[in-house]
Amino acid sequence: MFGVMLMATDCRLKEQLPDLTREIVSTFTSLGTINHLEHSSLPSMEKVAEIVEDLKEVLYPGYRRRQNLHFGNVTYHIGDLVDALHDKLTEQLGCALRHEGVPTGEGGTEEVDFEALGQVKAIEFLRQLPELRRVLAEDVQAAYDGDPAARSLDEVILCYPGVEAVTVYRLAHVLYRLGVPLIPRMMTEWAHMRTGIDIHPGAGIGRSFFIDHGTGVVVGQTCEIGDNVKLYQGVTLGALSFPKDERGELIRGKKRHPTIEDGVVIYANVGSSVWLTRGIEPHTVVTMEKPSLRYKGRGADSAVELGHEYYI
Amino acid sequence: MFGVMLMATDCRLKEQLPDLTREIVSTFTSLGTINHLEHSSLPSMEKVAEIVEDLKEVLYPGYRRRQNLHFGNVTYHIGDLVDALHDKLTEQLGCALRHEGVPTGEGGTEEVDFEALGQVKAIEFLRQLPELRRVLAEDVQAAYDGDPAARSLDEVILCYPGVEAVTVYRLAHVLYRLGVPLIPRMMTEWAHMRTGIDIHPGAGIGRSFFIDHGTGVVVGQTCEIGDNVKLYQGVTLGALSFPKDERGELIRGKKRHPTIEDGVVIYANVGSSVWLTRGIEPHTVVTMEKPSLRYKGRGADSAVELGHEYYI
Amino acid sequence: MFGVMLMATDCRLKEQLPDLTREIVSTFTSLGTINHLEHSSLPSMEKVAEIVEDLKEVLYPGYRRRQNLHFGNVTYHIGDLVDALHDKLTEQLGCALRHEGVPTGEGGTEEVDFEALGQVKAIEFLRQLPELRRVLAEDVQAAYDGDPAARSLDEVILCYPGVEAVTVYRLAHVLYRLGVPLIPRMMTEWAHMRTGIDIHPGAGIGRSFFIDHGTGVVVGQTCEIGDNVKLYQGVTLGALSFPKDERGELIRGKKRHPTIEDGVVIYANVGSSVWLTRGIEPHTVVTMEKPSLRYKGRGADSAVELGHEYYI
Repeated sequence: MFGVMLMATDCRLKEQLPDLTREIVSTFTSLGTINHLEHSSLPSMEKVAEIVEDLKEVLYPGYRRRQNLHFGNVTYHIGDLVDALHDKLTEQLGCALRHEGVPTGEGGTEEVDFEALGQVKAIEFLRQLPELRRVLAEDVQAAYDGDPAARSLDEVILCYPGVEAVTVYRLAHVLYRLGVPLIPRMMTEWAHMRTGIDIHPGAGIGRSFFIDHGTGVVVGQTCEIGDNVKLYQGVTLGALSFPKDERGELIRGKKRHPTIEDGVVIYANVGSSVWLTRGIEPHTVVTMEKPSLRYKGRGADSAVELGHEYYI
Repeated sequence: MFGVMLMATDCRLKEQLPDLTREIVSTFTSLGTINHLEHSSLPSMEKVAEIVEDLKEVLYPGYRRRQNLHFGNVTYHIGDLVDALHDKLTEQLGCALRHEGVPTGEGGTEEVDFEALGQVKAIEFLRQLPELRRVLAEDVQAAYDGDPAARSLDEVILCYPGVEAVTVYRLAHVLYRLGVPLIPRMMTEWAHMRTGIDIHPGAGIGRSFFIDHGTGVVVGQTCEIGDNVKLYQGVTLGALSFPKDERGELIRGKKRHPTIEDGVVIYANVGSSVWLTRGIEPHTVVTMEKPSLRYKGRGADSAVELGHEYYI
Repeated sequence: MFGVMLMATDCRLKEQLPDLTREIVSTFTSLGTINHLEHSSLPSMEKVAEIVEDLKEVLYPGYRRRQNLHFGNVTYHIGDLVDALHDKLTEQLGCALRHEGVPTGEGGTEEVDFEALGQVKAIEFLRQLPELRRVLAEDVQAAYDGDPAARSLDEVILCYPGVEAVTVYRLAHVLYRLGVPLIPRMMTEWAHMRTGIDIHPGAGIGRSFFIDHGTGVVVGQTCEIGDNVKLYQGVTLGALSFPKDERGELIRGKKRHPTIEDGVVIYANVGSSVWLTRGIEPHTVVTMEKPSLRYKGRGADSAVELGHEYYI
């Protein structure tokens, strides 16, 4: 009886679905902005994530995917990964470059072989990996040196979200400088999802960079950060203002984020309660005045000290 | 020798496991609150996540899963998804409705066909999708218009966690208003996990809403937000107080979160250092007084300006 | 023509890859710090995550993976999980213990059977599960009692990231106290990735603990937290200072994080705008003085009240 009643209900209601499908599909014409119905594909977030995982395996072999790597077999493993990365990057970079199209004056899109261009940039990118390993080794060391809770470099590589976010940023930044659209941001947003750390691939960041804990950190597109800088969770290096053009539209790509010089430490959640809107001389410790307190209850007569201390 | 020793140790220790299993199972009786051992199933987080991914594919076709969609094949793709969504939603909504049970006075649970009820609500929900696409197209446009780093609408759809969180919230809110228990919150918590943005499905949010960066944003259950509002990372729209009843238990469901009117921008981390506890007139810019500073070192004589600026 | 051109380009560029592979592999010798090329394996993040998911299924049966559990079949399900957990934990704990090696004076690593030691600790760990269920039942109750938006204990278990993070922390803390290296931190960082809540496995946390919303919460290694404590999103219980030894290196493992006593509530984002650097008497409400305001526009004449209120 139960089943019969359900099946009866089921059929009549389901007959509405073809009409509903037609109604949804009709919005693909009326709202062209949020559907991509063209024969050329966009880059795929799933494949970009796979590329990043492959790259992490090349950069930090033995930590993540493949166990029992040693000097006798590691060349085969890396060679295989590099070969596969070449093919995946060529395809995805080709999609991204085709999407962006060709700047005016350089001939129509028809004439450009975007996959070949993708391959050229893929090779240029892969050639940076040895140097990136040198830079990342310093970032990992900076994390160990900067955190009393760290017990070994291996723990830092296995566990630290700051190292993950900075690794992905450094990869994305190389692609950004090679003029690849979309994919650098897809990479850093994939890391943002995993770590809570949002570094725009356009930011410039020096050597030995460490972000501890990291959730809520935002580093904007036009930030410039020197060497030996340490950020804590919740620090925003955000924009001061958004200039608009004469039509009231945002001007894109101008410098609007802060510059942080060598050796700076920014403690937790700066950017939230403090907006430093002008530059500071080197070798200066900035401390906020302690705010006044009101307190009720047993502690009312005790000396409570409430310190705002921001070192920048 | 090594292997033998291990096997010997292994067997004797493993003999403790059946006793341990019995001890764990005995807590399922003594602690009934954190085990669900009934013949009726709860909704499944895995299946709810699958439903959300299917819905995103319907709302933003061509961006995520299926490549090479065009007007010649998209109807089959969407029709297939809508059909599958009908079945998955009917099942999961049925589980959720059965879990909540029937309000007193409407007859026993035995008499209610929860799966049929689930189907009715599933159809009502799916019928909202064309209108939701119109609303989401405005949200995507608001994101592009509000962020100088955005290069295209496609980048916004592919990468922006704020768009992901708002999309899932809008879906969940429709189910919430249809009186579906559990599943709306499961949806928004799934988005919270992926984006760091925690919007309660009960909140009311107007059109052209944009959250930039987003990590740490909290929008509470009884918030009301107007049109053209923009929030930055770390903004809490939280409760002021939690009234309790005469037995000392929290009163649930009362208005306790702020109302934000049209055209408001709330900058990063407001809610952390500022608690605005009363309403503000329209067209007002709220700025905190600059706090006093102490500084040591070379910068001690320079003019350092530290600004708290919150525009609400 | 297109395809031919591509294939021609393809071959010549791909010939660079073997050289590139050799160059990358050569950095595995020059930069030994960020590659693990030894015959012994490190613990695997993927397997540790699988262990945590299995443990959640034992602790909260019927909520996540397996549907239709009841008292007639649950013993088989739990017995099977406990058996598999024994094997997985023995292997992973063995890897972690071998990595850390043997303290000086206890004989060479050669003589220690790390897998047998892993098994002993795996059994000691599993024996804590019945007690952990009792503790977690109180945490779940505290979440329900502390949040007016919660509609049922089931919703709390299915959806609340705070419950997820605290569950994983409590598991990791047991392993930490058993002296297992690496794996406790891998567990809490896995939860950090999913919830935005970063609790070091070394922290000590009392009963009935609740973190609401949670994104951005940091609880440091040497924190001590009493019973019935409630934290909101963005709260940092961080270190005050990092003492260094005579060589300028951080001293690791010393107490450097705050102690929070019973019944304390810390509201959203405390630790960002307030740094409480000294202890407070019990039964005291701490409130910051309201800061001065500047405002422009229509609201300039209205009475705007801006309250900083931190209850600690």
